[in-house]
Amino acid sequence: MGKKSIGVGLMGFGVIGSQVGRVLLNRAAHISEQAGSMVVLRKIKVIEPDLGTPKTDGIDPVLFTIDENEFFNTPDMDIVIEVIGGEKPARSYNERAIKAGKHVVTANKELIAKYGSELMELAKIHNVSLNYEAAVGGGIPLIAPLQKDLVANNIEGIYAIINGTTNYILTRMSSEDIDFAPVLAEAQKLGYAEANPSNDIEGIDAAYKLAIMASLTMEIRVRPEDIYCEGISKLESRDFRYASELGYAIKLLAIARHSNGSVEVHVYPAFVPEGSFLAKVDGVYNAVLVEGDLVGKVTFWGEGAGAKPTSSAVVANVIQAARKIACGDTSHSYWKIKPGKKIKPMSEITTRYYIRMTINDMPGALAGIAGVFGNCGISISAALQKEDNLEEKSAEIVIMTHPSKEEAVQAALKELNNLSVVKTINNFIRVEE
Amino acid sequence: MGKKSIGVGLMGFGVIGSQVGRVLLNRAAHISEQAGSMVVLRKIKVIEPDLGTPKTDGIDPVLFTIDENEFFNTPDMDIVIEVIGGEKPARSYNERAIKAGKHVVTANKELIAKYGSELMELAKIHNVSLNYEAAVGGGIPLIAPLQKDLVANNIEGIYAIINGTTNYILTRMSSEDIDFAPVLAEAQKLGYAEANPSNDIEGIDAAYKLAIMASLTMEIRVRPEDIYCEGISKLESRDFRYASELGYAIKLLAIARHSNGSVEVHVYPAFVPEGSFLAKVDGVYNAVLVEGDLVGKVTFWGEGAGAKPTSSAVVANVIQAARKIACGDTSHSYWKIKPGKKIKPMSEITTRYYIRMTINDMPGALAGIAGVFGNCGISISAALQKEDNLEEKSAEIVIMTHPSKEEAVQAALKELNNLSVVKTINNFIRVEE
Repeated sequence: MGKKSIGVGLMGFGVIGSQVGRVLLNRAAHISEQAGSMVVLRKIKVIEPDLGTPKTDGIDPVLFTIDENEFFNTPDMDIVIEVIGGEKPARSYNERAIKAGKHVVTANKELIAKYGSELMELAKIHNVSLNYEAAVGGGIPLIAPLQKDLVANNIEGIYAIINGTTNYILTRMSSEDIDFAPVLAEAQKLGYAEANPSNDIEGIDAAYKLAIMASLTMEIRVRPEDIYCEGISKLESRDFRYASELGYAIKLLAIARHSNGSVEVHVYPAFVPEGSFLAKVDGVYNAVLVEGDLVGKVTFWGEGAGAKPTSSAVVANVIQAARKIACGDTSHSYWKIKPGKKIKPMSEITTRYYIRMTINDMPGALAGIAGVFGNCGISISAALQKEDNLEEKSAEIVIMTHPSKEEAVQAALKELNNLSVVKTINNFIRVEE
Repeated sequence: MGKKSIGVGLMGFGVIGSQVGRVLLNRAAHISEQAGSMVVLRKIKVIEPDLGTPKTDGIDPVLFTIDENEFFNTPDMDIVIEVIGGEKPARSYNERAIKAGKHVVTANKELIAKYGSELMELAKIHNVSLNYEAAVGGGIPLIAPLQKDLVANNIEGIYAIINGTTNYILTRMSSEDIDFAPVLAEAQKLGYAEANPSNDIEGIDAAYKLAIMASLTMEIRVRPEDIYCEGISKLESRDFRYASELGYAIKLLAIARHSNGSVEVHVYPAFVPEGSFLAKVDGVYNAVLVEGDLVGKVTFWGEGAGAKPTSSAVVANVIQAARKIACGDTSHSYWKIKPGKKIKPMSEITTRYYIRMTINDMPGALAGIAGVFGNCGISISAALQKEDNLEEKSAEIVIMTHPSKEEAVQAALKELNNLSVVKTINNFIRVEE
């Protein structure tokens, strides 16, 4: 028989933390029914500026503490939720919770991406569970499906639009034919992008989430620094125009896939076929396409951020942890990392490429350029000469290649840069069919 | 500590059963690793015609039996999989398995839709789990997300394209502008539709799956016969043309939603806005949109049928059941039915309507028709006079209404039928925004 009640402690009381706190308090009966035992919020660790703000209205003041020791010394606290985010002090708080034998529920993608295996090692020693559904894709069920529902499959690939800020920006650039900078400025005004947006627009946030999904499913520990990462700031509205002409949309994709015995992991803007499912994921929505050898393609779509969706995932994890505690289930899911798997160097990946450059419009220009590709063993599938500028005697050329090795394409770009007919190489985008 | 190994019995060895059997045998090591204990296939109940067919090649003949008693008397069989389908003999087999204290994994939508609560009552008495992920949406994780990952939410609505055969037919009718009968014939030739297709095209299959999802999430027992069900055979290619002109696609939707204290459950072809996610679900794919009060909208998309996807769900359920057995977890998920909730009669639902009719093209015709709608309290949002037939002096009229009560619209249709200017009412389709 399980314990009579399960105590919960909450660390962090920002936008997400206060939402989680309210759900735990306002839905106590529903949550307890689902968990099969009383689930009681016993203590909330806040920082001083939170106290006395509207967020705390109507919540018993005795629940709040600003003192770390008081928080951790709360009696009968079985589960600790961490929704502080970032490394400090979240990392040490999570470690302290685990060492004190508490099950942990966290929404902290950076922490799990960087220190997931270390935290799981620690959790294993102390025989507690580490739950992080909310770290990836907000309220969209992703971790649990990968961990449990698709577990009979060999996961062959994950293709994810997993950052709402960048997808919002790309959607507007594409539908309104405007450039990156003005859309970013507006996204910041609307609260869709942060004042310092580099974590989102450089793909770092997406890389954290990809590191977690890849480590969970591909039997290899993928750290954020293992992921080749390219952001969206280099994109221009004309790239979207050409993409559309060629039958593609441009999306920031986080990709993990098995490839001839090694694993590819990268985040970059990519051409995706207009008719494909991922091309249709617009605005702040997220979507994760998982390819399994039994299930084929399945896609999970929804709001990937926000306080309410995140609280949905956090509270689901709390209920699952409470159930496990109540029935004495001590089998916990940790990442299954196996030796021998390698991450494929970026230079070795093979894909199709879109290359846009400005050239001096003179006889033989295109022939010279085509010659470079040929020398590098790259076969061209389409070449369009676009938007002549008669005054400057220049023209824009768009090249689409057949599947080619990244190394060869990089070499070709270098040679092209040295070619006198090439004024600038404006952009270079990979294609995912 | 758990038992050393978990024994599995498999009932049914058709297309799905043989695939499940192969996965259990060929991936025994992977499955055992995920389950945390050895998972061993101990017996397969087949019917005589299966024996000696290519399906059985390479499988130890001692595993097969055609004898029900021999199957159930197999020692150390903890989990029984049923992939026979239909009511007979599946129902009595499942009951026998439960009564013998075996955990059940079934892909049988008809059985769970019709007798789910009775089987769960029985399972409760015998303290075993009843797992039915594969009964809805093939390999797409749906039951587990609804049961566990979205459990903090109040589920407000479910909107599902959950039958691949009909979605394939509708996709082709729409994209190729052809009528129902020739597409059905081709779907049958391609194996996408059965020789007797009525279960699919009349929406019965979708109603089974909706009954399961609604009973799981809406605290009310929804039986297949409670679901108002309209199929797709009445649709004509011109309905798709007009829908497209008006900015809609037509999809067979299975809908369950809370509505002023009662629950609406129905399956019918519906207009869905062209830009919406469900409008973009094409071909044999399934998609289920779930609306929760915390998570907002989340959608699960993938192949909703087929042996491989179904085996993905069945084997995941086996692994979960094995984990529970191994760690002695005896808390099982059954439907939580509460008294007091009612299913809303169809006459009381409110939605927008598309009505297509042929009229005698004479002065005052449209005025007479508009008068009927006005008398019934129905407000018209758009009226188009289409495709005059000069020879027959007839014309086709399309009416779109503002939100109206079904009862009023049915009354209007009756009156229209009595109007001398109305030759025929050709179609009548509800609109889901």
